Order: sequence, then structure tokens, then C-alpha cells
Amino acid sequence: MIVILKDGTKQEQVIKLQQYFEGMGLRIHMSQGENSTIMGLIGDTTRVDDELIASLDAVEAVRRIQEPYKNANRKFHPADTVVDAGGVKIGGGYFQIIAGPCSVESETQMITVARAVKAAGATLLRGGAFKPRTSPYAFQGLHEEGLRLLLKAKEETGLPIVTEIMDAAHLPLFEQVDVIQVGARNMQNFELLKELGKLRKPILLKRGLANTLQELLMSAEYIMAGGNEQVILCERGIRTFETATRNTLDLSAIPVLRQMTHLPVIVDPSHATGVSRLVKPMALASVVSGADGLMIEVHNDPRHALCDGAQSLTPEAFADVAEQVRQVLPFRCRTL
Amino acid sequence: MIVILKDGTKQEQVIKLQQYFEGMGLRIHMSQGENSTIMGLIGDTTRVDDELIASLDAVEAVRRIQEPYKNANRKFHPADTVVDAGGVKIGGGYFQIIAGPCSVESETQMITVARAVKAAGATLLRGGAFKPRTSPYAFQGLHEEGLRLLLKAKEETGLPIVTEIMDAAHLPLFEQVDVIQVGARNMQNFELLKELGKLRKPILLKRGLANTLQELLMSAEYIMAGGNEQVILCERGIRTFETATRNTLDLSAIPVLRQMTHLPVIVDPSHATGVSRLVKPMALASVVSGADGLMIEVHNDPRHALCDGAQSLTPEAFADVAEQVRQVLPFRCRTL
Amino acid sequence: MIVILKDGTKQEQVIKLQQYFEGMGLRIHMSQGENSTIMGLIGDTTRVDDELIASLDAVEAVRRIQEPYKNANRKFHPADTVVDAGGVKIGGGYFQIIAGPCSVESETQMITVARAVKAAGATLLRGGAFKPRTSPYAFQGLHEEGLRLLLKAKEETGLPIVTEIMDAAHLPLFEQVDVIQVGARNMQNFELLKELGKLRKPILLKRGLANTLQELLMSAEYIMAGGNEQVILCERGIRTFETATRNTLDLSAIPVLRQMTHLPVIVDPSHATGVSRLVKPMALASVVSGADGLMIEVHNDPRHALCDGAQSLTPEAFADVAEQVRQVLPFRCRTL
Amino acid sequence: MIVILKDGTKQEQVIKLQQYFEGMGLRIHMSQGENSTIMGLIGDTTRVDDELIASLDAVEAVRRIQEPYKNANRKFHPADTVVDAGGVKIGGGYFQIIAGPCSVESETQMITVARAVKAAGATLLRGGAFKPRTSPYAFQGLHEEGLRLLLKAKEETGLPIVTEIMDAAHLPLFEQVDVIQVGARNMQNFELLKELGKLRKPILLKRGLANTLQELLMSAEYIMAGGNEQVILCERGIRTFETATRNTLDLSAIPVLRQMTHLPVIVDPSHATGVSRLVKPMALASVVSGADGLMIEVHNDPRHALCDGAQSLTPEAFADVAEQVRQVLPFRCRTL
Repeated sequence: MIVILKDGTKQEQVIKLQQYFEGMGLRIHMSQGENSTIMGLIGDTTRVDDELIASLDAVEAVRRIQEPYKNANRKFHPADTVVDAGGVKIGGGYFQIIAGPCSVESETQMITVARAVKAAGATLLRGGAFKPRTSPYAFQGLHEEGLRLLLKAKEETGLPIVTEIMDAAHLPLFEQVDVIQVGARNMQNFELLKELGKLRKPILLKRGLANTLQELLMSAEYIMAGGNEQVILCERGIRTFETATRNTLDLSAIPVLRQMTHLPVIVDPSHATGVSRLVKPMALASVVSGADGLMIEVHNDPRHALCDGAQSLTPEAFADVAEQVRQVLPFRCRTL
Repeated sequence: MIVILKDGTKQEQVIKLQQYFEGMGLRIHMSQGENSTIMGLIGDTTRVDDELIASLDAVEAVRRIQEPYKNANRKFHPADTVVDAGGVKIGGGYFQIIAGPCSVESETQMITVARAVKAAGATLLRGGAFKPRTSPYAFQGLHEEGLRLLLKAKEETGLPIVTEIMDAAHLPLFEQVDVIQVGARNMQNFELLKELGKLRKPILLKRGLANTLQELLMSAEYIMAGGNEQVILCERGIRTFETATRNTLDLSAIPVLRQMTHLPVIVDPSHATGVSRLVKPMALASVVSGADGLMIEVHNDPRHALCDGAQSLTPEAFADVAEQVRQVLPFRCRTL
Repeated sequence: MIVILKDGTKQEQVIKLQQYFEGMGLRIHMSQGENSTIMGLIGDTTRVDDELIASLDAVEAVRRIQEPYKNANRKFHPADTVVDAGGVKIGGGYFQIIAGPCSVESETQMITVARAVKAAGATLLRGGAFKPRTSPYAFQGLHEEGLRLLLKAKEETGLPIVTEIMDAAHLPLFEQVDVIQVGARNMQNFELLKELGKLRKPILLKRGLANTLQELLMSAEYIMAGGNEQVILCERGIRTFETATRNTLDLSAIPVLRQMTHLPVIVDPSHATGVSRLVKPMALASVVSGADGLMIEVHNDPRHALCDGAQSLTPEAFADVAEQVRQVLPFRCRTL
Repeated sequence: MIVILKDGTKQEQVIKLQQYFEGMGLRIHMSQGENSTIMGLIGDTTRVDDELIASLDAVEAVRRIQEPYKNANRKFHPADTVVDAGGVKIGGGYFQIIAGPCSVESETQMITVARAVKAAGATLLRGGAFKPRTSPYAFQGLHEEGLRLLLKAKEETGLPIVTEIMDAAHLPLFEQVDVIQVGARNMQNFELLKELGKLRKPILLKRGLANTLQELLMSAEYIMAGGNEQVILCERGIRTFETATRNTLDLSAIPVLRQMTHLPVIVDPSHATGVSRLVKPMALASVVSGADGLMIEVHNDPRHALCDGAQSLTPEAFADVAEQVRQVLPFRCRTL
């Protein structure tokens, strides 16, 4: 870590800073330039608070060399992590497709969709029982009953299940869930992350709408610091000025994360774009960019034409996407 | 609510949509243009899911006329809400200054700062016992002990206290807290908001780093829908491309919110800018923009020069800000 | 176009508005809701100024149904435009790779790179003679001499050339240039666009760093309104909070633009990411997303190792990318 | 300037870099850390291209200590610049209000507004003759005739005039204009900036919609590098996710710029917010934040009720704002 001091910083301030850093067990390498002084901090700087240091009167700028994440860092763990999600492997070359409806609505719906997506090639089943909604007046999910229906669908089809948690207090209900999802809005719900760190179960962590990749890894680090190393990262679009899509899918995040971390990275093109016709091109683009998996919304309700055209695909459209995905899979670009 | 249908939408799709909206208790007013059809939905559209409707194949665009928030809406509640924060009033002309350290560190620190800010004119005391930190390796606050020290400082000075909650599971510890703060990263932690809606105690709700004012009001609506109408909104800067400040303080949010809602609006210039020398000009600008209060970080540790220049002010600098604030208070621009 | 009036708008204001719109040759369809009035404007609303109307006291909101662009609109021109770029076709199924160095530096450099990229499969040659640089102290390009060297390289290899213009006053120098490029920072340099509209030569228009796709099409419309319909659009990354890449490549822009417009859309993964190792995955992702072409930076200066690792590829790395691109080309997702 | 090299960079690459920097006349101070090497560059690094260096294979990160702007830098020019705008001083304690209509429309309009704003306290007159419009179909201004009418209004009232230029080719028409404005969309039209650098006349440079303050200063530097030191900076709102206002006014930019540069800084609350009722609170907030002036849109057309409520104020509303501005002027926060 490099700390650049301002012109004219008094010697006593420099000494105070030195003592502060030495008190944290760091060694200091001073370098005197023409009109600035540079402190190089040597040792484990993970615990140094960049923002605090940067805001000091004497400090012009702070520059980390060592990344602030350790457990998630590929430098200290060169081999890809392979997550075992209820018997299905993700990462390290293993590619999976998670599919299912946005919300769990009924037993018939879940079992029909589960069978359809399995037949089309999905290897995990998704469905929301707890739904984060901007409005308190919108449908909030079936909760406990929704989890029961998901487990029923798992029993019927053998597909491991992925579903979202919104509060650590609900954890007892998630015991038989294979992969616990943390939504974008909870990416920095640190108390929840700490609780998930105590589990030994895969966590699917979605990137927040205005968060950087380093912040995503710092949130993964919260889970991993607790001892749970089974984290799957998910790119799901970020907020930009563009209004033609719900969010902007950041596909360069995939090869960038591959270099930063050993954790598997999947993409959710349904939520990122919010438009069903964009799911296929973005799914294929995710695959060639090197993704370890996809998460795709599929609905199945022939009588309920209302949902046509939403971000969800019909099972037939999903089968077409899954088939195309298989065809471009050999072209995945996975070099570091 | 206006739903604009695409060119060439089939009559059967139009009828399905009509039936769907009628099933929600809405009346429909159809208007046929040259190459588009417009549905006007009449009645309580709060429960209509804009995103779902907008994503339908047949729909070109959706436009709300009625805002999706009711309890927070000034249209249905023209008079300013005055929040009683431990005996101190905020809103409806009452202006308050909340001051105190970023983190609660020790009894001496808390009591010294509390006395100093009280002497300088602060009317509420702030201090963090639970600290949301990007890194799991950073100091996370004194927790229960921190709350105890805050209450001690309240006892000594009589200042009501404001402190942040990060998980509803901690609520039992907050019983004697006067104002419970929800941080920017938890603005859309909906499960937490629902729990706070069950209380009858003021909630200080900070705007998320990339959230719109309507989203802020929807989060206030979560609390209010539970019956807790004592919500104070706080502008604390949003994420932009600018790097010279930590965030960008959005001061036009104050007069805009004044028109949208009857809730009091305060500003936190310390966190918004991250630079102590910017606190004074931004505090004054907040006041003339019509803010109902300020939240300012003040530290007090003469031996601990490390923190000089951080976003925190010394008690002396705070006294100067508070004095200037009093002078510009007559120029607050509070017309709707 | 829908104009939604505010509650309590006076009848005389409504009549003034009606007269104003009728004066523009529009017919008006009024629709009276419970607490709002909706005006539907029928006819050619291209000349209506949305922002002006939206800012009127009486107006709650304005919603376009008809897009504000006509010449670029696929609705009025369903077939793909095929641009002839010096004998090479782009769009409508034709896919091309534009390659070459960032800046034209010398005759040897240009001819060596031109031969190398041609051998690897590039079909157009790029190179900057006028360079937009943030700093006035940075190298600004070889100007007239640079254009001469580009033409020399064209003569040697037969590759048509693409190069950037920064001021309409330089147009006389661009007579023999095959495709004139407008950079991201000039996307809304309207005087330049108008001058380019007078030409009958392909224009490659890059998206601005913080511009929406509709704004990009409005800039294309400036060129097309002058009678020049040979416009190629280029996605080159937008500004976001992410710092791991120079900009964020917005690949969903490709299928979205395909629906909005009949103009060809290409992608510049070199400038978008600013990192050479990301060029390959993003090039492949662009192709499967449906792009009509790629623009890739290639340098060739074995003695000048300084540039290794910049956003430019070596000719060998470029040949590998071009080969992979050919392999995924059959998987381009080009459905509307 | 600090260049941080990656782990495992080969000695020969280090030597090449050293030679490259030495070739630019810089001295190098090497500092060897545990797992990284830091190069400190000493001398005039203004000409070093950060982006190029940062993108090299061997380089982990680049950090400027010296700012890349010289002429605009307060470090090298501690005293405030006072710009003489047609006899009226701005900066260094002098505060001015520029007012007038968005577009010049007719002689009657210009003279009526000019007299009204002068009576209310404006000291410069604004009006657009060349209008940058997103759509080619929108009114583009009266051009030469508009400039003639502005000069007529100046003759009548004695107010110096401020008006926007969109292309250097129009410069001959601007000979008698007192202050030439560069709009937000042209902030990085570098060819235009270079031409303006050749003049000896005040330039009002507006910040681009998604540009940082450093980028704004680099654009000022383009003008100043040509020898024209009379640059006035203007904050006019940046693009954010918020939709309640047209742009987000960044008021912390004022005290931040005051430290970075000696140039005067003014604020345009009319364009920033796009809503007339927000002009007053944002004008007052700008003043206490330390602005050197305001630029406010005022229209005057009692028969043309259409424009009521737009971003323009009536002369009466403007007189009220001007009066309030005078009252808060003593509270301007101008400390560095």
C-alpha cells in the first residue's frame, strides 16, 4: 500500500502516521520526492482503512497494491474453485444452467416448469419464495409454502434448487435448499453475509446495481471469512443511463473476475435486460465470454398469456436457448 | 395509469389485458389513436406492477399518473409531518442538528463529544455502535457496549440519540434509542423496513447510493405501511463519476422531496463529501435549500491527530458551522 | 404522443395548449380521467419539443409513442441498410473486421500493420491522424501527413480506410478516405454532423460515453436528415462506476439497436475495455450478440515493447481473434 | 507520478520503462517492496500519458501526484483570477448574475427581457443564437440574426453579452460578443477549444454531462495553453439516475474547484434542474457554497403562457431570486 503525503506535511504528522501504521504491525518504506513524500506500507494491509487514511489532512492519495480481499483472491488460490451445488458442479470447467420461474406460485406450476426445464437441459431449478419488491403493496412471495413447493419439485425431478434469502432470521427454513441466493439489493447486507459465512452450503451472490467488482469480491470475502468457501458470483446488470434495457449487462465482468478470483461466475440475462427477446443473444455472449453458468427465467402457464413477452421465456424458447448454448460452449474464452 | 399498446396488438390480447385489470378492481378507459391504442386505468393502481406490465409483448410503454406511494405522498397529506425525536421536533419548520462521532469508541470519547456538540448547539447526538463496513476485516463497531455508552452520554447531556441498526434481530438492544437509523446500503433491505414499520419510534432513512427519490419514498412507504409514520429522510450523496468527493451531494433533492412528500428531510454533508473542509459550505447550502436538519460528524480526540482532516470536524470547527447555520436559517427556501 | 395534464389545470390553459398543438398541424384526442386529463397528439410529432412540453406548469408528464427519429427508424425502413465502405459491404448479413493502429506514426508502421492485418483477415484498415486527447500536452496526431500515410497503406494493400475527423474545417483532407469516423466525444457535435450529412460517404458514428441509444440514433438522424444515409453505428463502451475496465461495453445495445434501426452496428472492444486481454472474449461476445462488424486496435512494433499489453493486440494475437471470430460467426444471433 | 509494477516483472521490461521515462527528461526513483516495485517519476510529468502507461503489461497501477493541468492549477497561481467580461468583473470576490432568455427570438423580446433583468439586478445578458438540440428537427436558433439582436440589446442596456458558439467556423460573427460560451456537449470539442485559446476574450466553459472536474480543468487547459487565460467555469448539472430533475446539480464542485483552480466558477441552476421552481433554492445554495456568479434563464412573453413553468423564470420571479441572492451574499463560504 502506497500513501502519498501532501506537500508541506509537517514532520510530526509524518511521525504520527508512521507510528500508527507500525502499531498495526506494518513496516514502512519512506521515499522522498521533489515535492511529495511517499510511504510504502509492507506487510498485511488488509485491515488498513483506505477511506480513513485518504481523508487525512496530510494525505494526498492512497493506492493499494495488495487487493483488500484474500480468500477470494486468485493470487493466493490459483486453481478454480469448483462448487458442489447439490451434486452438480459449477466452475473449473463445469458449466450449468439454472432455470425456473421468477416466483413460486403453485405446485402445478413448479412441477410443470421443473420438468420442462429439465427436459430442455437445465441442471438446477430456481424459483422465488421470498421476493424483494420495491413496493410494499406488490406480491412478496409464498414464503414457507413456496419453499415447500420448491422441495416438492426437486423431489419430482431430482434438480437441486436455488432460491433467495432476504433475512438471516429465515435461515431455518432454508435447510434443504441446495444453493442460497443473495439478491442484488442485499449484496452489502453485511449481517446477512456474516450469517451465511457460518454455513457450509453454496451461496449465489448477485452483484449490486451500482457496485464495482471489487465490492462484489469484498462481499464474497464476508462469507468466506466465516469459513464458507462455496461462493458463486452472479453478474446481473448494473444501473446506467440507458433506458432501453432494465439494466446494462456488464459482460467484461466475466473475464475480469476470472483474473481477480478463483470463484465461479455466472450470468443472469433475464434480470439484466428485463426483455425476453434479449435473453438468447446475451446468454450466448455470456458463454463465449467465459461464464461458468447461466440463470434464466422460464415460466409455464399456457392459460396465463399475460406474462408473454416479459423477461421470462416459454419452455420452448428456453429449449432453443439451451440448445444454442450447447453449440457455442466449445468456444468459451477462458484464458486468464 | 396509462398503458400504451403496440401497433398491431391483436384484439384477444387487448381483451385479456382488460380482464386482468378489471380483475384488480380497476375501470378502463380505451382511447384509439392512429397507430396505437391507449388504456387509461382508473382506480387504485398502487398494486399494479409497472415492470411486469411494461414487459408484456403487447405493451409499448406504461406511465403512472398516480404515484406508487400513498402514505408518504404530500398529495394525500398536505401538512408537513413533524417528527418527535425524543422530545425534539424535526420538520414543519423545526430545524435540528444531529452531531457526534462516526463510531462509538469509549465512554470518555462519547461524553466529551456529547458535551462539546451540545455546547455548540447540536440538539441530537449521533454515534455508530454497529458499523457497515465494505471489508470484513475493518472495525465493525462496539455493538451492545456501544449502545450502552450512547445511552450514558444521553443521560449526561440530555441529548436524544440517533444510531444505526443493521439487522432486525438486534432490535431488542435499541429499545431506549430515540431515533433508529437505516443506512444507505440497507435502504432496500425490505425485511428490516417491515420490522421497523411495527415500531412506533422515529426512523431516519438514508437514501441509497444509486437510488432515485421515488425509490427512497417507496422504502419509507414500507415503514409507513406498517403503521409507523415517524420517518425522517436523509440525503447523503449519490454515486457519480466524480472522484474528487466520495459521493455527490444532491441538494435539489431537498426541494423536490418537499413537493413529493410531507416527511422531514435532512442532509448529511460529512458522509456525502468525505472531506471535512466541504462540510461547512454544504451545510449552509443544505439549509438555504430548505433542509429540516443536518447530521454532522464531530470527533474529539486531541491526542489522536490521526483523524484530523477526515470527514469529521473538531468541536471548534463544528461550533463555527453551527453558528453560520443559525445565521442563514432565516433564508431557508421552503416554498412548495 | 401523450401529454398528461396535472390535477386542477385550468380550462384556459388546456385550450392554449390545444391551440399550440393544432398550430403545429396535430390533431388532439382528449381523454378525461378521474383526476387527470390526457391529451393524445395525432400526426407527425417529430418536431414537438418533449422537454419544453414536460416543463410546462400544467403538464404532469409527456410520453412519446412515435420515436423522434424517422430516417434511422426500422419501422419506416424494415430492411437492413447495407453500407458500401470503399467496395466492402457492412450490414444486412455482411460482417467486416476493421483493424489497425491507434495512431498513424510512420510509413513503415502503417504498411507493416496494414499487411499484417490484411493477412489475418481484416477487411478495412483503421488509423488515427487526428487524435482527440484529454490533455493539450499529449500527442495530437500527424494530421495531414497521417492521412497521406493511410492512403499509402491503402494503395499498398487495397484495404479501404477508416479514420476520425474532429472538425468540419478539415473535410477537404478527407476526400479519399473511405469511411469517416466521428468519435464518442463528438457524437453531439451537431455542426459537424450536419456537415457530414452533406457528403455521400459512409460515416462511422461512435456512441458517446454517457449517451443513450436513442441519443445515438438522434445523432445518426442529423447525418441522415442531410441526405447521407450511409451511417454505421459503433458501440464502444459507456462510463459506469466500474474501474476495472476503462469503460463498460454494453452488448445488449446490439440486439436493441437491431430492433430500433436498420443501420449496421459494429463494436470496438479495444477502446471499450482498454485492456488487450479482454479484446478476444468481448470480440466473440459481440459476434454472437449479432454485431455487423468489429473494430480492433493492432500495433506492430517489435522493438517498441513499451506498448505490449496496452489495449492494442500484436498481429499474432489479432490473427487468433480473427480466426475465432470466423468460427463463431455461424452462431450470430440476428433475429429481431 | 508513481508507477507500480506487477509482481514478477522482468528486469529487462523494467529497464525499458526506465529508458522510456528518462527519454522524456524524467528522473526515476525506484523503490523495491516485498512483492512489487514502485517507480517514482520526478520532473515535469504533464506529458506522460497515464492511460498508455496504465495499460502496459508490466504495470499494476499509475498514480499522479502532480496534477496534469498547469495553467489552471491554483498551486502554481495562488491568487484568484478576475475575469473582465466587457467591463464587468467576475472572480476574486466579484459576483455577477447573468440572465436572459434561452433563445433569442425577436428584437422586442430581447430588449424587453434585457431591460427587465437589468432592472432586477443582472449585470450580464445571455441569449442563444446557436442552439445545440438533440433533434435535427428542433429549432436551431436565429444564428447571425440572433447575434445582431443581442448586440442591439447590449446597445440599449449597456449589459455585456454572453452567447454560445458551436463551431469555430462561426468565430467571425462573435467579434463583438463579450463572453463566448462553450456548451456542455462541446466541453471536449478540442479543435474548438484550441481556436478559442487563440482569442483574448473571456470564455465561459460549461462542464460536460458526465465529466469529472479534472476533465473540466483539462478542457480549460486547452484554452489557456493557447494563451487565453480568461476562462470562467460553469457547473450546470451532471447526468445521474435521478429522473425528478433534468440533471443533478453538483454543488460540492464549487468548493472543490476553488481549491483546484484559481479560475472563477459560476452555476447555472436553470439548466441543471430544468424546473423553474427549483431555480431559487439552488441559486441560494450556489451562493453560500461560494459561487462567483449565477446564470439564470428569464423569459418575458406575457401572451405566450405556453412557457410558464418551464425552466425559465418570469422577470418578477427573477427579481425575487436576485433580491434573495443579495441577502445571502454576505454568507458566501469562500475559504480554501
